[in-house]
Amino acid sequence: MKFKFDKVTILGMGLMGGSLGKTLLKDKIAKQVMGWGRNIKKLKKAILKNAATKVTTDIKEAVKDADIVLISLPVSLIPEYFKKINPYLKSDCLVTDIGSIKEKIVREIKKIDKKHLFIGSHPMVGSEKKGIDNIMDNLYKDGVCIITMDNNTDKNKLNFLKLFWKKIGMRLVILSPSDHDKYMAGISHFPHLLVYLLILLQKDNIAKRKIIIGKGFLDTTRIAASGEEIWTDIFMDNKENVLNEIKKYIKELNRFKLLLEKNEKIKIKKILKKAKLLREQLK
Amino acid sequence: MKFKFDKVTILGMGLMGGSLGKTLLKDKIAKQVMGWGRNIKKLKKAILKNAATKVTTDIKEAVKDADIVLISLPVSLIPEYFKKINPYLKSDCLVTDIGSIKEKIVREIKKIDKKHLFIGSHPMVGSEKKGIDNIMDNLYKDGVCIITMDNNTDKNKLNFLKLFWKKIGMRLVILSPSDHDKYMAGISHFPHLLVYLLILLQKDNIAKRKIIIGKGFLDTTRIAASGEEIWTDIFMDNKENVLNEIKKYIKELNRFKLLLEKNEKIKIKKILKKAKLLREQLK
Repeated sequence: MKFKFDKVTILGMGLMGGSLGKTLLKDKIAKQVMGWGRNIKKLKKAILKNAATKVTTDIKEAVKDADIVLISLPVSLIPEYFKKINPYLKSDCLVTDIGSIKEKIVREIKKIDKKHLFIGSHPMVGSEKKGIDNIMDNLYKDGVCIITMDNNTDKNKLNFLKLFWKKIGMRLVILSPSDHDKYMAGISHFPHLLVYLLILLQKDNIAKRKIIIGKGFLDTTRIAASGEEIWTDIFMDNKENVLNEIKKYIKELNRFKLLLEKNEKIKIKKILKKAKLLREQLK
Repeated sequence: MKFKFDKVTILGMGLMGGSLGKTLLKDKIAKQVMGWGRNIKKLKKAILKNAATKVTTDIKEAVKDADIVLISLPVSLIPEYFKKINPYLKSDCLVTDIGSIKEKIVREIKKIDKKHLFIGSHPMVGSEKKGIDNIMDNLYKDGVCIITMDNNTDKNKLNFLKLFWKKIGMRLVILSPSDHDKYMAGISHFPHLLVYLLILLQKDNIAKRKIIIGKGFLDTTRIAASGEEIWTDIFMDNKENVLNEIKKYIKELNRFKLLLEKNEKIKIKKILKKAKLLREQLK
């Protein structure tokens, strides 16, 4: 068995970073996985759990000689950490991330990434559970990973990154950073907002009569259990697209409100049928 | 083993009616289950599937001598069918239904129900699958059933109805018809509307890039696969409560929009955290 990558460095050994390290080692995709973090206790757990072969809290040591560096940190920290590691990277190193927004990250990194070492990734996997204690060696398997590119993207590096995610078992989609953020606003970011607000408006029913809350409501609002730190960042960083979805949605709600006020039964039924048929196209 | 009820008549042998009949017979709760419907082929299937002991398309024959009549028909037909069967019911018969709205049904039936035979039920169970082919003998088990009552409700009949649903394995909640409809608007009817409209706005993403649509979106929008006939009726029949939820929600969306426009990060994080904590109280 030949190793595909000699040294992969992962910044941030949480659920996402730790699970990736475990997969890279278990499937013999990387010879060495270097785990970096600020908490040495958690890093030692990463070793015990076979998510890394070496760990360090020294960022310079972490990225030295790495073939690939994966920044598995909250969205708001990604450009800052690229800046920190940039001086220590070897000249053909590939840097990527796992952030749920791309345009802002890519724009900020571009300013300093003179050697075009960075290409954005968004592996669309995850779990409500967090941290090194919950890592899984199959978290990424069969998931979809979006890679973002633009005119400046180095084609060799892009192929290298595609190979990396494919080895891990992911299906790939290539988008521009701005398309990524626009589409994600519609199918992920705005839906999260929608159910966060729904939950808030139903606080009386939740507090006083849980017994009559059925499976439909639970399924619809499951994603409202997602962390407020991450989602505040996402809404702020993808602000224009999210605002755009909000505006379109308010318009739609007002339109429906008018139909209901006017008892437009036939039109309402048409709308619901159209939505039902669309939903049936998914799975 | 003693039978608890001699003759239970079910009007409408679809998923809900058929599953109820099957449970009543399997658990020996009823001696005789009479299934009524307009399609004799489907009724014969009900017999084959042990969901009824007898079937008929003659409504007079169906309800004659029944101890309980369960109207398992679409919401819009329930008062009309009560009117049809009313002349043929024995004087101590109990009539109930399975409708997802209650105020309008109860109000309309009250006008003709001089002997107070009707008490509304809303067993909060179901499936996306429909019809006699998909009946299950455990559909109702461990589910929650709301029974509605007001000052006119006959206490003996109420106890009889409670016993009926308890025998089937349901947990009971007693509400007034208007409270029922108000609460349901919030935790069921409006959430359905919310995701129907979400689906419509995402029609481009659904048509062009299914691959990037993740589990979160699928779970959130699962209930948008519900039938447009039933849900048009529900929105129309619970119009005032649904309009009220729409108005509150538009207000909330506008408030959040303003916070996002002004980059009110701390306030946004607070809102999301509050929602997350509320969601965590469920399940």
